[in-house]
This record gives sequence, structure tokens and C-alpha cells, in this order.
Amino acid sequence: MNNDKWLIRNGQFIVNAPETSVVKGCMMIENGRITYIGESLPEGEEETPFIDGKGLLFMPGLVNTHGHAAMSLLRGYGDDLALQVWLQEKMWPMEAKFTSNDVYWGSSLSVLEMLKGGTTTFLDMYDHMDQVARVVQESGIRASLMRGAIGLCSEEEQAFKLAEAVQFAKEWNGQADGRITTMLSPHAPYTCPPAFIEKFVQASYDLDLPLHTHMSETAAEVQQNVDSYGLRPVAHLEKLGFFDRPSLVAHAVHLTDEEIAVLASHQVGVSHNPGSNLKLASGVARVNDLLKAGVTVSLGTDGPASNNNLDMFEEMRLAALIHKGVSGDPTAVPAAEALRMGTEYGARSIFLNDTGTLAAGNKADFIALDIDQPHFLPYSDLISHVIYSASAKDVAHVWVDGIQVVKNGESLTMDEERIKSEAQAAFEGLLAR
Amino acid sequence: MNNDKWLIRNGQFIVNAPETSVVKGCMMIENGRITYIGESLPEGEEETPFIDGKGLLFMPGLVNTHGHAAMSLLRGYGDDLALQVWLQEKMWPMEAKFTSNDVYWGSSLSVLEMLKGGTTTFLDMYDHMDQVARVVQESGIRASLMRGAIGLCSEEEQAFKLAEAVQFAKEWNGQADGRITTMLSPHAPYTCPPAFIEKFVQASYDLDLPLHTHMSETAAEVQQNVDSYGLRPVAHLEKLGFFDRPSLVAHAVHLTDEEIAVLASHQVGVSHNPGSNLKLASGVARVNDLLKAGVTVSLGTDGPASNNNLDMFEEMRLAALIHKGVSGDPTAVPAAEALRMGTEYGARSIFLNDTGTLAAGNKADFIALDIDQPHFLPYSDLISHVIYSASAKDVAHVWVDGIQVVKNGESLTMDEERIKSEAQAAFEGLLAR
Repeated sequence: MNNDKWLIRNGQFIVNAPETSVVKGCMMIENGRITYIGESLPEGEEETPFIDGKGLLFMPGLVNTHGHAAMSLLRGYGDDLALQVWLQEKMWPMEAKFTSNDVYWGSSLSVLEMLKGGTTTFLDMYDHMDQVARVVQESGIRASLMRGAIGLCSEEEQAFKLAEAVQFAKEWNGQADGRITTMLSPHAPYTCPPAFIEKFVQASYDLDLPLHTHMSETAAEVQQNVDSYGLRPVAHLEKLGFFDRPSLVAHAVHLTDEEIAVLASHQVGVSHNPGSNLKLASGVARVNDLLKAGVTVSLGTDGPASNNNLDMFEEMRLAALIHKGVSGDPTAVPAAEALRMGTEYGARSIFLNDTGTLAAGNKADFIALDIDQPHFLPYSDLISHVIYSASAKDVAHVWVDGIQVVKNGESLTMDEERIKSEAQAAFEGLLAR
Repeated sequence: MNNDKWLIRNGQFIVNAPETSVVKGCMMIENGRITYIGESLPEGEEETPFIDGKGLLFMPGLVNTHGHAAMSLLRGYGDDLALQVWLQEKMWPMEAKFTSNDVYWGSSLSVLEMLKGGTTTFLDMYDHMDQVARVVQESGIRASLMRGAIGLCSEEEQAFKLAEAVQFAKEWNGQADGRITTMLSPHAPYTCPPAFIEKFVQASYDLDLPLHTHMSETAAEVQQNVDSYGLRPVAHLEKLGFFDRPSLVAHAVHLTDEEIAVLASHQVGVSHNPGSNLKLASGVARVNDLLKAGVTVSLGTDGPASNNNLDMFEEMRLAALIHKGVSGDPTAVPAAEALRMGTEYGARSIFLNDTGTLAAGNKADFIALDIDQPHFLPYSDLISHVIYSASAKDVAHVWVDGIQVVKNGESLTMDEERIKSEAQAAFEGLLAR
């Protein structure tokens, strides 16, 4: 239903004010924005077209704040290996062969999985980003996109990559009816010389765009930073001016108290990637401490090759579970906080100020879960059920900008059969080359 | 299809010999048992009825080796609390009100969720066990059942509980066409005086049945054991003769090296409950060390109130993920081992010797996953996909003893609408009483 004004009646809606709770009633959408949520039908709207929300739980679309969508082509190609072995012997040699066509179909496969699983916005840092942007345009998803640049190369090649990153960021920011925003992204302190990072910082000023990077994913990489530059990664990036810009770091597993304080004082966001960090044995991030310090912690799946799915419900559940188990504090990351990490904090992390919650005035990026299923019974605490019991496969419907993109679990915008077959062919092509 | 002899053609089958791998071809089922798995159609079977396995991945049904099914009625009723607060202020007061009717509908809700999610066998330790047995009879699932007895009561009441446990174990062992087996189960060392545990050990000899108990779930309970009896739980149970019997302990989170050696030497199985242990902040079990010591480690969901779903794919994934992340060893609990924990080791843990793997001679307890979905692409390593990408909702079909109980995600044996509505009513009744 793409009418200019429409309603959901008889639904249940997860809202955030005054605290995260569930409202039973109606939601109105006008021109892609939520204009009303409340128990009763707004006056004068008796004739407005509506859909029946019975048996559905409506919540904000999930926001995946770190990933490399095209890596879905390498899902299951190398598991149970150490990060550096996995990167150097499995991922990088295969990724070096990726063509634009591979990135297009790999990204399509991931966006299809994400949309069907309730993710309405994702961040993507990769190469051949025009292809990813094309997928965003076609699919109707929202995205924060950036060309990730590894600087372990000649200065000439560095300059080429930087120019490509700048060009992409300029050209695509605001495209796809405003669904695409862009950032600038040196890959990581351990893969980018300081001078290369500084150029990205400068470009971030020049283009007035935020910065993103991988940081302190492994203990070894932190030690390498100390050995190379005499500083841990946070102090190193601070010194390079990175944190003077609006910025988001991915992983941030290995942090000292001082580093947490620095991130908090600069309002640096952290994209926590629990599934990937566990699978690659990188460690367990200090999420309790980050949240207590006031850092905005959001959630990312990372690439599908290190996860290995793009189910943001699983990331929310992992965030709610592992920090309890590892800290011994069963009150750590309660369900409502995990939900905010997957939605509201996600939007804030990538500098979107009008999505991530169901609230009048916000963009109508939302999803409906089919809660008429055994694992959602009894109806005791729906927020608990979303975090501790739901999965991507419970998502029935998805809307972005008020436009429905998934209906009864089927994509309305993407050709699923074609994408599956092309992704398989792309993988086989990579193996054969 | 309940024919005496039938085939699956054109399928992919996860087998365990010589190592866990996938066979493309046929599986034959005769009178509830697997009689053949191989690449080609067996000679002379061209006319045998068959189903087409295209797009499906066949694997053993999952075996859930610790739980309290009826607690589904308390799903979401109290989260993010410490174990003792959760038990004493939330669970136990509500459970004290449970009637036979509550246990029947709560267990029905759980068995429905388990069957639809690919669990073909579960262990249940609870009260009103006749009701759980009824659900097993009606649903077609396989189960190891036992009346769990808390001994914090008068000797008279203890004697009554023991008699009830013995009576149940005698009466129901071998029932439901052999799908029910029984065990004897004092609740835990911290809830049962030593003399009470000894009576269960004696009954285990008398009835020739195995033993099950909770053990060392929390650090506090271990300390309490030391304070009360001068021994940690493993030495305590060993002294009481518990480990001289075939036995399975649930949780076993807090173990010393010596305790691991004792469990290994007595061939005591451990039911690892990663979701519940994380959620209740009990800690992270030493699964790597247990496996290295040769202990049979299987997986349990625990009750739905501390999990909060009964998705055994999630437990396998948690087992594969958290022990990597916490130990720093990315090769810990590889995908194939997590799969065995959820299937083969599960069956072995509850003393079933002819289920848990797809192999000629075994009972035909198996499931089919719909792998024609984006998160299973590309078809690189299907075992990796089962562990790192699949969920309960990917299960299309389920067979127990060769009889189909779930078809295209719908239960063939249980009345889903009735169960959901009765479970909700039971929860509301508990709140009102």
C-alpha cells in the first residue's frame, strides 16, 4: 500500500517513550513518515485506507551498522580459523578476484536476506561501491555506504583509492530518494599508514561527511599499533584527528578504561559485532562499560563470511546474552537496551536523526513480526520475546520510507530466484578463476 | 508417508562416517528405520514410493538433553534477573500454582515448538510428568522423561516424591511405541540432602535406569556445597555413588581440572545449556576442556523461561561461537563438532544407541531443512551453514520413527491453534490465581 496516507489498525507497536513499551492501537503513515501512534483511531480518519495489524507486532526496522555485504559470496568458505589466517589465506585471495559483477550479486544476496529479516538500514564498507549503491536503489533499503580503503600499497595506489572513496561519497550522498548517505572510511589503523588516515580526515572536513573504520578488533592488532606507533589505536586515531570528526568505529573489542573515556568524550559511536567477534575468537567487547560511559553502542553483523548470517535479531540476542554470561551480571544489557542497540542507537550511530524508532515525525522504516507462533506465547512481555525468542524468519512485512518492500516474507522489490542463482554462479566463478 | 518402505531421492544427507560430511543421493526407510544411504538408488527399488528431496538438506533430528517444557508458560515472565531472585521470586511461586492442566498445555506448547524446530527427542525433568508423557504420546516426539524431585521438605514429603518418581519411571519406560524412556532425577545437590540423593541412586540400581541432575550451574551453589558438605559437587556426587550409575548432569559450568577428570573417568555425560547459562549469568562452561577430556557433551535449552526459545540450532551456534570468543581459540568447537553435540552426542547422553545420526540401522528420526533460501547461499559448506546460519524456522519436515510429524512447517500431530490459545489461557489463569 503506497497511498499517501494510510493506517495500521488493531496492531501492537513498540515505542520508546517514556520508556520502551508496547502500544496497542493505530499507526498512521503519511508520505513516508509516521504521523501518529496511539490507542485510538485519530479523529476524522475513519475512511482512511488501512491494513489490519492483528497478530502482528510492529517495531522499528533494524539498523546494521557494520558489514561488507558482498562477502556473502564467501559464506562458509573458511570457518573455524584464526582471523589473520582466515583473512590472508581465505578471504583476501578470493576478494582480490571480485569483479563488479560479483559485488553486485553478493550485495544483492545480502540485501535480500537483510530486508526479509527486518533490517531496513545497513552500513556497507567495501569496494566496487557503485554496485552496492545500485542494489540499494533497486531494493528500496536504506544504507550508509563507503569505499573502504586499505593503505598497504604504493602512494600512487593510495591516492587512487582515496580519490575513488571521495568520488563515491560525493556522487552518491543523498541518492536513491535520500535513502543513501555516505561516509569516508580508511579500513583500519593496522592497514593504513597515519598519513593516509589523515587524508581521509581532511576529506571528511572537505565533504562534511562522517568517518568510519575498523578499530581494536584483535589484541594482536592493538599490540602492533603500539609497536609501530607507540600508541594504542584510540590514542593513535585521536592524535590523527579522526575523533574530532563525527565518527563510528567497528568492533572496539580491546579497550582500556582510558580509551573508553576518550571515545565517550568525543562522542565516537561503537558498532559492536558480537557474532563476528566470537566466531573469529577476537574476544568479548566491554559493552557494559561502554554503555555506562555513555557511548552509543549499536550492532553490526560484519560480513556474512564471519557471522555467517545477517540476522540482526541474533545480534541483539547475543548482545543481551554474552555480556551477562561473561560479566556474571544478569542485569547487564537488558532486553529493552539490546533492542535500542539494534534500532535507535543504530540510526544515531550512522547519523540518521529521523529513523530508528516508531515516533510521529520519523521516517516510516518499520517491520511487522508474526507473533501468532508458539515461541511468542504466552503474551507476557513482547520486548523480551523480540530479544530472547525471535529470529529474522519471524518477520512478515517490511516497510522503508512507508513503502512496503517485503510482504508475507516475500521480497516485493528483488528477484529472489535470480539472485540466488547468480550468487551461486558468482561463487563458482570465483572458485574456477 | 507412512508406507512400510519408502525412499527419499535426489536429496542431500548429513552423515557422520568416516567424518561429518554430506552425501548426495538416496535414503531408504523401512518400518521406521533407515536401511540405506548412498549416492545411487539401491537395486530393485525403482518402484518403491519416494519423495523428492530437491532443495532440502536432511540431517538427524536434534536432541535436547535438558529442559522443563511446561515452563514455556513463564516465557518472558521475569528476565534480566539473578538466578536465585528469578527462581525464588518469579519462577517458584508461579510453579507452585501449576496444575496438571498447566503442565499439559505448557508442555504441549514446548513440544509443538520443538517439533516444528527440528527437535525429535527431548529430555524433560519436571512435575506432573504423566501430563508430559501424554503430550509425547500424542505428538509423536521421542523423550527421556523423569520426575525431578526437590528435597527441601519433610522426610514424609521426600518419600512421596521418590515414590512418585519411581512409579512414573516404571510405568512409562518403553511406552508410546518405545518413544518414551525414563530416568531418575534428584533436582540438584543444593536442593537435595545427601540421604535423599542416595535413595535415588538405589532406585536407579533397582530399576536399572540412569540418573540425571542439575550440577554446578552457579559458583554460589558450588560454594554452598563446600560449606555444607566439605566437598565440591562432583566429589560429593561421586561419594554418594551417583557416578557409579549411568548418569547425565546438566550445566556443569563451574568445574576444576580434577572434576573434569572425575566426570571423564566415570563416563558422566554433560548437558551444556549455553543460552540459559548466559542469560542467567551463570558463566561459561569449560566445554573445550570437557571435550578434550573425552566427556560426552550434549546440548540443552533448559526451560523456555531462561532461554527463551527452544531453538536447538541456536544452542549449537552458541556452543560453536562462545567457546571460541571466550577462549580466544577460533578452532574451538568447530561446526561439525557443534552439530554432533546437538545430535549424536545428545542421543548418547540419554542412553539411546540407535538414533542421533543418519546411518543404516538407526531409527528414522530426521529432519529436512529448506536450503533454497538466501542465507544458505552459496552452497559452499552445508555443515557450516547448518551451524552458523540456520535456525529452527528453516525446518520444513520432521520424521520420528519414520513417521512424518511436521510437513512444510506445519504440525501433523498437534492442534496448534488450540495449544496456543490454551497456553495463553493457562498463563492468564496463573496470573489470576
